[in-house]
Order: sequence, then C-alpha cells, then structure tokens
Amino acid sequence: MMHAGQTALSNRAVQGEKRTLVERLGYSRDTKLLIVHADDLGMAQSVNAGTIKAFETGLVNSGSIMVPCPWLAEIATYARTHPQTDLGLHLTLTSEWTPYRWGPVLPTDRVSSLLDKTGYFYLTESEAASHADPKQVEAEIRAQIDRARSFGIQPTHLDSHMGTLYQNKALFETLLRVARDHKLPTRISKEWFASTDYLPSILKPEDIVIDRMISIEPSVSPEGWEKFYTDAIKSIQPGVSEIIVHIAYDDAEMQAATADHPDWGAAWRQRDLQFFTSDKFRKLLQENQIKLITWREIGKLQYGR
Amino acid sequence: MMHAGQTALSNRAVQGEKRTLVERLGYSRDTKLLIVHADDLGMAQSVNAGTIKAFETGLVNSGSIMVPCPWLAEIATYARTHPQTDLGLHLTLTSEWTPYRWGPVLPTDRVSSLLDKTGYFYLTESEAASHADPKQVEAEIRAQIDRARSFGIQPTHLDSHMGTLYQNKALFETLLRVARDHKLPTRISKEWFASTDYLPSILKPEDIVIDRMISIEPSVSPEGWEKFYTDAIKSIQPGVSEIIVHIAYDDAEMQAATADHPDWGAAWRQRDLQFFTSDKFRKLLQENQIKLITWREIGKLQYGR
Repeated sequence: MMHAGQTALSNRAVQGEKRTLVERLGYSRDTKLLIVHADDLGMAQSVNAGTIKAFETGLVNSGSIMVPCPWLAEIATYARTHPQTDLGLHLTLTSEWTPYRWGPVLPTDRVSSLLDKTGYFYLTESEAASHADPKQVEAEIRAQIDRARSFGIQPTHLDSHMGTLYQNKALFETLLRVARDHKLPTRISKEWFASTDYLPSILKPEDIVIDRMISIEPSVSPEGWEKFYTDAIKSIQPGVSEIIVHIAYDDAEMQAATADHPDWGAAWRQRDLQFFTSDKFRKLLQENQIKLITWREIGKLQYGR
Repeated sequence: MMHAGQTALSNRAVQGEKRTLVERLGYSRDTKLLIVHADDLGMAQSVNAGTIKAFETGLVNSGSIMVPCPWLAEIATYARTHPQTDLGLHLTLTSEWTPYRWGPVLPTDRVSSLLDKTGYFYLTESEAASHADPKQVEAEIRAQIDRARSFGIQPTHLDSHMGTLYQNKALFETLLRVARDHKLPTRISKEWFASTDYLPSILKPEDIVIDRMISIEPSVSPEGWEKFYTDAIKSIQPGVSEIIVHIAYDDAEMQAATADHPDWGAAWRQRDLQFFTSDKFRKLLQENQIKLITWREIGKLQYGR
C-alpha cells in the first residue's frame, strides 16, 4: 500500500518530472546543500590532530580515512568514540611523500602490480593506475574495508585517495562494484560526465551523483586562498556540493613529509585548517543559505537505510 | 711472515695472557672506550630529526635504523648523504605504540607468526618472542637487511629493537647467524653471561663481546635524569662500553605516539636529547678520559676489513 506522498511522487514521475537529489533528500528544490569533506585521515598525526580540531567546530563535517597509513589506529579510536562523525574510507593505492611511505594491507606478493620497486605504493596516481591489475585493486580495497571494520570503523562512504580509482574505466568499475556490495555511496560528481565518456555506461539508476565538487588547486597563491574559497562558496548553486579540503598543522612532521612537495603540503593544509574553522566561513555559509549535509544521509537515501 | 709485534702477541698468548678488546682495537689496556648509541631511527620524524641534531654535535656517534617503520626513507637519505655516520640496523619485530603501527617487510602471509590479530607486529617483545617462528624471524630480518641495502644504507652493525632477538636461545642464534653471514658485529655484552646461560654455547671465539651496556630505566625520575647519566659516566671502567639512548623531540607527533606509554615516551626522549648534546656531557667525557668509538671499528676488527 502506498501513502499519499508516494502517489504524488509517482504521478510526478509519470509526468516526466524528475526529482532532484536535493528533493529526494527531503529539501526544497532550491536548497543549497554542502558536504565539507577532509581527506587523508590516518595519513599523519598532524592530519589527524588538525582534522579532529576542525570536526569540533562543526564546520568540517565529513572525512575519509586512509587505512594503509601508519596513524590508522589513532583515527580508528576517534571513530569508535565519536560514532556520529561522518567518516568514510579514502581508499589508498598511492604513497606520495618521498621521506614517509606506506604499502598495502594485503600481503605484498598478492598485490605486486600496486607496488613500486621499493616495495611501497607508487608515488603518483598515474603510475599506480597504469600498473594496477584491477583484480589486485579489488582485493586490496576490499581488504582495506575489512581492516577498517576490524578496527571498529563503520564507514559511511568510499572515495579514492588522489583519485587513483577514477583514472580509468576498469578501476572506476571496481570502485563502484565494491561500493555497491558494501551498500556505501561513493564520490561521483555530475561534472565528470563532461570529461569521462564511459560514465553513463557504468552507472546504474540507483547510483547517486552529487552536483558538483569544489577543490582548490596549486595555481592559487597562499594570498589568494581566502578569496578562492569565498568566491567558490558564494557561487554555490542549489543542489548537493562537496568541498574537498586537506587539513593538518604546518608542523615538523608535516613539513618533513611534504618537504619536496609543497602542493598539498604542510602550509597548504594549515591554510585549509584556518579557513574552514573560521568565523568568516561560518558567516559565508549563513549569508549564502548553505546547509551542511553528510554522506550518511546520502547513503541512507541510496540504500534505504 | 710475522712481524715483531705479532710475535710478541703470540708469545703473550702462549703465556695465557689474553688481550682485551680495547687492546685489540689498538688502545692501551686502561683505555675507556664508549659508543653513544641512539636507537629507533626511522620510527618517527621526531626521532629522525632529534637524532640527526645529536649526531651533528659529535657526542652521539652511532645509531640504528628500524627498517619496517614509515620514516625509513627519510633516514636512508641521511645515511646516503652522510656515509661516514655509524649506522646499523635496529632489527624490528615489535610495533609498540598503540596509535601508530607498522608491520613486516616480507609479505604478511609469510611471517604470520610475527603478527598480532590486527595485522601489525606485536606490541611487546615478550608476545613477539613467544609467538615467533625462528624461520620466519630469520627470513624477515634478512629482508630488513636487504631493504636497507636497497635504500643505499651500508649498515655497520645489527641490534634488536626492544631486545626481542635476545629473548630466547633460538632467536639469539638466528641473530648471530644472520650477523655472521653479513659480516656485521652485533650488540652482545659481557654482563649478559651472568643472566643468559646458553650464551657460551652459541658464541664463537671470533664474536666480539663488549664489556658493558648502560641504559636508563623507567625507575629514574625526570629530575634524576642528569644524575643517573653523570654517575654512570663517572663509573665507566676501562673497556668498551655502550650507552643506549632514545632521542626525539617532545613534540605533537611523539606525544601522540607515546600517549599511553610514558616510558621511552616523548618527554623521556627529549631529556636524552638534551643531556647527550650538552656541554656537561662533553666535559664529563673529557674529565673522565673517555674516548668515543663506533661499531665501524669493532666490525673492522671482527672481520678484518
């Protein structure tokens, strides 16, 4: 038996009027929804500490964890003691800081296509994607999910560190298959349809696609940081947007890790910490009628939890 | 053909007069020789940074590297660019900081006896030793040596993190076999003969045994730190002694790593840094006629390099 609301929806569907994601989430069509998402949890102590501080402001409201990284156990303790925090898994197939490295969860001889000659993950997403055997990728990311659960993490979503799993069709299909099996939503943005021609062929009607992603780029100077984010937030349109941020302190650990890699480096991450915990950001959200939402709500919608 | 000195030595040997290690190293019998050895390089950025600072004073003159740890690549770069530094390998079979973990160099399924249920090394040396299959230990420590060499480290000696390889006869024999195969000296102290009854049966005449080891213990209060080391240095007798120190900064990374483990924790390590880079320590060495020596000289003596 259907109730009145469902009947009305069905009528609208019959009339060819497609409900937007925002409406399906229970908001009016003109609502601006935003996920403020911190990547790279577990990667370094500085990342964990800075991101937890940002979570405490409520302004950064989602994040994802790198299971193969050395500080997993610390962020897992946070996840267990803060079960309401929206934490997903930042599936990891790269190890990008030259002085500080990590490798797979699975035995190295079972995922040899994922490892460089030093025995760690490749430094870059393009090297990783070009060498990766999708079967080994699937085994490894399933093992990352299993290890996360064994540490008491209940992930709300999946995404891909450095976008490695978005580098080609076989890897993207692998991510989608694993996400569906685990009934987890994953980061897919409408904008990608313009650049990724295979997307329509591998998505299913039930896969949720958010409207846009916002991410600062190395071309922005430190002085331009606040203006970039301010402009980006003012430009947010109705729909579901996600801002991807990278938070840490500009401290000795992070400076050493990123010494030869200023992009997404220590100072970058502290600038993100500063902006996204600021009153200015809080006011921008208010002034632009932006409501925060998390992957938890999107997962509930997608899988009817 | 033997020269005069050798003949004299042979005569002394015939007379049953045994040359001391100090004499064999080319010093007079009453010389006090000391290795000031920093453990745990590669374990954390804070350990690398603090220990490198201590090396620069010349007062800490030896150290050993934990190959399985995340910051190996950073200290390997230092080793390659400072080839005269006396760096050995701190063979590692434990992962003792609960928020920050590491595992083996070999594929995990080949060394399952070394791993706890979370997939990392055990937290304590006693758990590690009681579960360890010596064959798997041998394979893993050989792999740690191989990885160190592949990173351009030319180790001068071997020792064992948390003394795991000194926990029982089978493990100690494994360490000795691997050390001899690689023609590397390893940490063995005369004092151990009193507590380790199998030692005479597994040592060979050519194995070098130093005279004593000095290591501070958790029972010493922070206020008692300087007095402990001062008394220990004043008490050094002729022979070869080794002081084992643990150096890092009392910073965010180290505080987080050792949050539930104040022994050998962040503050402990900064106290070691402070004492062993101090003018007080330098003067103590001078006033007590103590000469510094390294494992490099001991290895040359043992293996005739």
